[in-house]
This record gives sequence, structure tokens and C-alpha cells, in this order.
Amino acid sequence: MTEPRFERLKQRLAEVDDLRKASALLFWDQRVMMPTGGSAARAESIATVGRLAQEHFVAPDVGKLLDDLRGLEESSDYDSFEASLIRVTRHDYEKATRVPPELVGEMRRESAHALSAWGPAKEDSNFELLRPHLETNLELRHRYVACFEPADETYDVLLDDYEPNMTTAEVREIFAELKEELVPLVREIADAGPVDDSFLTGDFNVDTQREFGLEIARRFGYTEEEWRLDPTPHPFMTSPGSGDIRLTTNLRPDDLSSIFATMHEFGHGVYEWGVDRSLARTPLGSGVSLGLHESQSRTWENLVGRSRSFWRFFYPRLQEAFPEQLGSVEEEAFYRAVNKVQPSLIRIDADEVTYNMHIILRFELEQELIESRLAVKDLPEAWNTRMEEYLGVEVPDDARGVLQDMHWAAGGLGYFPTYSLGNVISVQIWERALEDLGDLDARFERGEFGELREWLSEHLYRLGRKFTPQETIERVTGSRIDSKPYVRYLREKLAPQPA
Amino acid sequence: MTEPRFERLKQRLAEVDDLRKASALLFWDQRVMMPTGGSAARAESIATVGRLAQEHFVAPDVGKLLDDLRGLEESSDYDSFEASLIRVTRHDYEKATRVPPELVGEMRRESAHALSAWGPAKEDSNFELLRPHLETNLELRHRYVACFEPADETYDVLLDDYEPNMTTAEVREIFAELKEELVPLVREIADAGPVDDSFLTGDFNVDTQREFGLEIARRFGYTEEEWRLDPTPHPFMTSPGSGDIRLTTNLRPDDLSSIFATMHEFGHGVYEWGVDRSLARTPLGSGVSLGLHESQSRTWENLVGRSRSFWRFFYPRLQEAFPEQLGSVEEEAFYRAVNKVQPSLIRIDADEVTYNMHIILRFELEQELIESRLAVKDLPEAWNTRMEEYLGVEVPDDARGVLQDMHWAAGGLGYFPTYSLGNVISVQIWERALEDLGDLDARFERGEFGELREWLSEHLYRLGRKFTPQETIERVTGSRIDSKPYVRYLREKLAPQPA
Repeated sequence: MTEPRFERLKQRLAEVDDLRKASALLFWDQRVMMPTGGSAARAESIATVGRLAQEHFVAPDVGKLLDDLRGLEESSDYDSFEASLIRVTRHDYEKATRVPPELVGEMRRESAHALSAWGPAKEDSNFELLRPHLETNLELRHRYVACFEPADETYDVLLDDYEPNMTTAEVREIFAELKEELVPLVREIADAGPVDDSFLTGDFNVDTQREFGLEIARRFGYTEEEWRLDPTPHPFMTSPGSGDIRLTTNLRPDDLSSIFATMHEFGHGVYEWGVDRSLARTPLGSGVSLGLHESQSRTWENLVGRSRSFWRFFYPRLQEAFPEQLGSVEEEAFYRAVNKVQPSLIRIDADEVTYNMHIILRFELEQELIESRLAVKDLPEAWNTRMEEYLGVEVPDDARGVLQDMHWAAGGLGYFPTYSLGNVISVQIWERALEDLGDLDARFERGEFGELREWLSEHLYRLGRKFTPQETIERVTGSRIDSKPYVRYLREKLAPQPA
Repeated sequence: MTEPRFERLKQRLAEVDDLRKASALLFWDQRVMMPTGGSAARAESIATVGRLAQEHFVAPDVGKLLDDLRGLEESSDYDSFEASLIRVTRHDYEKATRVPPELVGEMRRESAHALSAWGPAKEDSNFELLRPHLETNLELRHRYVACFEPADETYDVLLDDYEPNMTTAEVREIFAELKEELVPLVREIADAGPVDDSFLTGDFNVDTQREFGLEIARRFGYTEEEWRLDPTPHPFMTSPGSGDIRLTTNLRPDDLSSIFATMHEFGHGVYEWGVDRSLARTPLGSGVSLGLHESQSRTWENLVGRSRSFWRFFYPRLQEAFPEQLGSVEEEAFYRAVNKVQPSLIRIDADEVTYNMHIILRFELEQELIESRLAVKDLPEAWNTRMEEYLGVEVPDDARGVLQDMHWAAGGLGYFPTYSLGNVISVQIWERALEDLGDLDARFERGEFGELREWLSEHLYRLGRKFTPQETIERVTGSRIDSKPYVRYLREKLAPQPA
């Protein structure tokens, strides 16, 4: 028979989840559908629903239920729904209740102010406009860290919000390996001479781009019954309900980047889509961490969507969609162009290799900031020096330097590393999939992606948040997080071939 | 200085409003954007947000604040924001706290079940599938009515939910006057011979219809900054935030009805849009009753949108949009066609005159049901007899008879009369506007509608819910609700002209 206290906990968590789903919709609508006149009212709705979701979760009776359910947890299999729900909820609850609501409120408010300052600061390339806000954000992060048991490193506490249970030391080790391999790789590629990608810029009808992105997404698993795809300036994915996946993409009329953005967001979407439906309306019903999530967006964008076999199938179709622009461009030239490696200023436009250097730079600066080894006022200089050192590029102004991302203004210290962790993890999982499925290229060349999707669902997606990120990686790959497969992949794919 | 308890009340009500706005968005998205796969999760989100909004409002501390604020209310002007907010909130609070949450829950659940049964029942034209649900709904309404002080008539309590402070006796009197005038008018029109409207059926591109509807709406006051218009099978308007008005319309490829649906929903939208922005995030920040709301949808759909002067401006444009279908149809023939009066089976397709007979029939049957003078099982027969008597049409099956509307399945007894009350009120307000503004036809012929909109905003819309519906009507028109202007309007516009 079912333990009534477990049912009560489940019911409460279901209601919290209903509110979070409502928040997801409020957010999606704000960015995709809302007329601008609705901004003020929407900000209030988002704040109130978010606060009530939080209050509903951190209420003392939830703590009491969690205490009372220790027996059930211990007598249930570690893998069982019951044990997992209690364990994960306890972890979430302990984190959430450590931080006073006033501090949560202050952090949210200051982030909002800083974000408002970030826009104009970037526009004017004027770091001074943002500096005081970053200093406040940093001070608030110190107060936040102080709410928790002392960790090995201050940064550990921040990282844990985005990549639970991962330590700064582990990330540092992985990134050191990446840096050691990638800096020379970038140089080798540069020495091999330039790749022509001029034909990727031009006049590309946005409706045709959208249709083409949809065609790919449908081949990947998108259905009209459970998905949407809408245009937006800054692409993202959200799911305002189980069986309701919302992708967005940025349709630029002068390049084809929307196609890769669509595949990227599909990867986030298919992870949420594949979570076991029995976990819906519980805290277990979504992807487990930002790193794992990014591993899937990068899998579908890069490992699939920038592969030769993928374009073997889709390139003739793309040529048909854009005959004037691509009719005379060979498949191999196109493949090389969409895989061109070249150091550049802007993270979000970076290629598969140099992208990681952008992340490593941010990861290092974040640690120095939180450990007060670097003052906010000295941030631009530190940024520029390191860009020169790691990527050999000179930063012409802060807009294209330290001001390019919104993350720090939003208060998200500890977020960036998850992007490169995702890259690393993606290839570990990919190699396991290949072991089970054999060569996928022949299938991709026929436009078949179902087996890959089903393997990923079966081994990763369906697990949701039942286990920690590290447990999840180990269950899927049989090993801990490891940079070697990723470095090997980059080298095999992108290093200049000996003539 | 501000009374801190008043600020506390305002803050609480603002949060309740935030949740209601979130509910409005969940509902809009469900009907307009959501992939079908999201239904189950959405039902849960809607239920939870709705329940929390209710709980947040009926909490005992709200009652305490209302008691404590009697002094402030009495010492403030009746028209002041403070007195109005306290007075209206007290009325809402007293109604809301009289009904036990369990009964509210049961009514919602049973409505949902009945609505699920209604679809198939209508599809199969099988009243028996719906009958037990209607019986349950009726029984629950009896329990609902029992929560309140005894009224003159049982039906008064139900009516009050949709048209506050209006009594059944008042409605009965108004409807008796309408019936006495309209039954002979319908006969006169029928005797005058048929009107050709065959050209209103044909092949009408839906994108062109949508564009044309938008062109009208923009002339009326629609802006991209604060409005949206989206297609949906069953048109409605909602506002998920001040400055955020969402219209929907039904784009049928074989007729032009979407144009009138768009104008109808615009009327609902502009009422919400015109509410004084200082009332946002309070219970005063929306239209005051369904009757007043309908008066505005009918104003823009019929008084404006089916007038000669309106079409003097728009008909050449419509001909340009649909040259094949309308190029050879004279303006006067078109005007007569969109104003054709002909008894028919379906309420929502009815003309301006016979529409009211559909409503009167429902109003009478509802009273008989709630007073147990009519058993649910005898409803189809009573319906059919009265359709014959009032409109002279024979009902071929229940799908086109008693099963055509979802309202009774949804539990909405007392809702229907507000449609005809809206018609009646619309002309009372219209006549007052004409007194102030003089002849509007010349302006309509030039495509100018701003003065009318501004007059309505100034005299009606901006008031929101500060006063009762009756007070509002009296403030706008100087008199109580009165059927004579409406009957006079219908007769002048639609009665056959002596040769």
C-alpha cells in the first residue's frame, strides 16, 4: 500500500511543478508572443508566480514530510521512484531553505537592475555603466555562499547551482586538459590556411530557413502534436508542460545560422521530451543539469548537424531551397565552411574548437573575482590580455569583449563552465551510442535519426533528475567525466590532414 | 498619508490579480498556441493557479483588513479609488467566502465532466449522453444557491454571478418588452420577401480575411504595441495584462464571418484596453459585467460594423480584396445581405433581431429548470416547442437544438441573458454618444472611429469595476436599463420600408 505521507509530498510537489510550468509559459510568451505593452504586468505575474512556487516548496510541512519519509527512502531501492523523489527533493529543499527569502529577493532585484544597465553599457561599450552593478552582484554572491557549509573552494557553491555535485577542482582539471590540447590545435588549423565560407553570407529567405529547420527537426523527431518552433532574437527552449516542447530560433535574413540554432534547441527539447512521462509533475521530470542539457544540444547541433553524413542527406535539399546561393557550391566545400575553425571575438558565434577557449577564459576570471584576486574594475584589462593569449585576437572595445554576455549582469556566476562540460560529455555519450548502434553515418545519409534518438532516450533522457549528473554520466557511459574523447573527436574531425 | 492597512490590502489584491492574469495566459495559450500534447499538464496548471488565486483572496486576513478599513471607506468619497476598492472587494469577498471550497471544487470537476460529455453528445445528437450531467449540474446549482441569503427568486443568485445586482424580475420585464416587439417584427420582415445573400458564401482566402479584419481593427484603435489577433475555432478575447489585449477570430474559408467576429472581439478588447491604467492590478481593473461587455462587442460589431456608413468606407476596400466574389455586387446589396433577418436554428449565426429570441427561450427554460417546473429529461421537447412558437422553425435534431451551446454543460446557468442585455444597453449608450458627438456617419464614411472610441473610453471604459453595472449604466446614460432605444433602433434599421 502507498504511504499517505508520500502521497502528500507528491501532491505538494505536483502543485509546485504546476506553478513552475505556468512560469515557463509566462516567460516563453513574454519573449515570443507578448505585445510590448504587456511588459509591466508580465513582470509582476512572473514575480508573483515564482515567489509562490518558492514559498509553496520551502514551507515547513515539506521539511517535516521529508523527515518522516526517511524510513521509506531507506527501505526502497536507490533507483526506485520513491527513494529518488525523496532524495532529490531533500537535496533541493536543503539548498532552498538555507537562503533567506530576503536575500533571494535582493539577488533577483539586483540582477534585474544590472540587466537593465547591461543593455546600454554594451550599446555604448561603456564598462563603467555596468561596473557598480557587477560589484553589487559579487557582494551578494558572497552573502549567498555564506549561507552554506564551507566548501573546499568558494566557487564550488556557485557551480553547484548549475552543475550539482561537481567541484571546481574537477572542472579545473578537465579545462586544463582542454587548454593544453586546444591551444596548439587552433594554431595548427590557422597554419593550414584559410577556409572559404563566403557563401554562408548572403540573402537567405527567412521563411525558407524556417521550413528547412522544421524539415530537419521533423526528421529528428519533432511532431506537430507535441512541439512548436517560433522565431525570437535570442533562441531558447522551454517546456511549459510534459508533452509540450517549445523551440525558438533566430531567423537572420543574411546567413544560415538559424538552421544550427534550431538543431541546438531541438537537442534541449528532445531531452525534456524524452524524460519518462511517469516523472511528470515531480521535481524529477526534467533534464538533470545544464551540462547534461548542453551535451544534448551540442550533440544534435554539432555531432549530428555538422557531420558529413548529415549533410550528405540534407545538402541537396538545402541547395534546392537556395539554388542561387548554393547551387554551385560543392558539398565538401559547404561541409568545410560550416566547420570552419577561426579565433574570433564573440563566444556565441565561435566554432566547435575555439568556443571552449571563450569558456575557459570566463571560468578563470569568475574564480579570480569570487576569490577577490581580481577587482571588478580590472576585469576588462584581464579579459583583453587573456583573449590575446588564448585566441590571439585583439579586443577592440568592451562591447565585443567583457560586455558581450548577459550572464554576469544576470548574476549567473558559475554558469559558463557548463557549456564546455556539455561539449565534453556529449562525445562521451556519443561514443557509447556508437558502440551499441554501430556506424550511424549510413543512417544519417538516408535521413534516419530515430535510432540515435531512441538510444539517447532509453539511456539518458528517460532518467530525468532521478540521479545526480555524475551518477547519470556514469550510468550512460560507464565512466566519470573525461575530456579525452572530446579532444580526440575535435582532432580527428578538424585537425589539418597531412597532405 | 496612506493607511498602511489599505496598502496591505492593495498588495494582496495585486498578487491575486497577478495569478488571474497568469490564468488568463494559460487559457489563451491553451486555445491558441499549445500543441495538443500539452493538454494534461495545462489542465493541472490551470487548476492549481486558479485554486491558489482563490485561496489567496478568501484568506481570513483579507476579511480582517476589509473590516478594519470600514472607517477609511466611510470617510472617503463614494467615487474615490479607496472607497471603490474596499466596497467592490467586500462584495466579491462576501460572495466568495460563502461557498465552501469543496463545493467550488465539485462544481468545477462536474463542469469538466459535463463538457467532456457535451462534445460527443452533440456529435451524435444524443441528449441522453448529456442528461445525467445536466442533472448533476442542476443539483449542484441548488446547493450553490443555498449558500446565500434567500433571494426573491432562486434564479437571482445565479444571475448575480454574471450580471451583479440585476434581478430576474427586471430581466423578465425587459425581455417581455423585447418579445412583444420582436415577434411581430420578425413576421413583418419575413412577409417582405427574401434578401439575397448568396454572395456571402464562396471562396474567401483566409489570409486576406485576416488582413482585412486587422485593417478594420487598426482603424478602430488596435496597435501592434498592445494587441494581438490570432485565429481560433471559437473566438474570444482575453487580456493577460494591462496593455496586452488578445483578440481571436475564426477564419472560415467559405464565408466572411471572421470580419464580424474580429469586430465583436475588438469591442470586448477595447473595453479592457480603456480601463483606467491606475486600476491595473486591482479587482477594479476590468469591465464591470458580462452585459456591459457584450454591449461593447455588439457596438463595434453591429452598431458600427453593420452600419451603412461603415461599409461606405470599407466596401470598396473589401471589393478590392475579393474582386472575383464581390466585384459585381453593389454596396447596397452587400449592406442588406450582412443585415439579413431570418429565423434560424443556431444562436451564434443569428441576425440582430432573432438573436434575442434565442436568448429569451434559454432564459425561460433556465428559470423553469432551477425552479423544478421543468425536468431535464423534458428539456429537448420544451426547446423544440418554443423554437417553433418564437421563431417558426422546426428543430430537426438535438445537435441543432438543445445541444448546440456548451454553456449549460459548463454549468453556466444565468449567463445567457447577459447577451441580450448587452444588445439593449449598447443602444442606450450609443444614443448618448450621438447626443454628445453629433452625427457619426460622416466620420465613419471617412474611416474615422477615434472620436467614438474616445467618448466610450471617457464615459464607460475607464470606470472599470468601480461601480455596479447599474450605477455604471446610469452614469453613462443618465437612466436605468431600458429596452425602448434598442427596439426603436432595430425597427428603424431593419423593418421593411413602406414602398
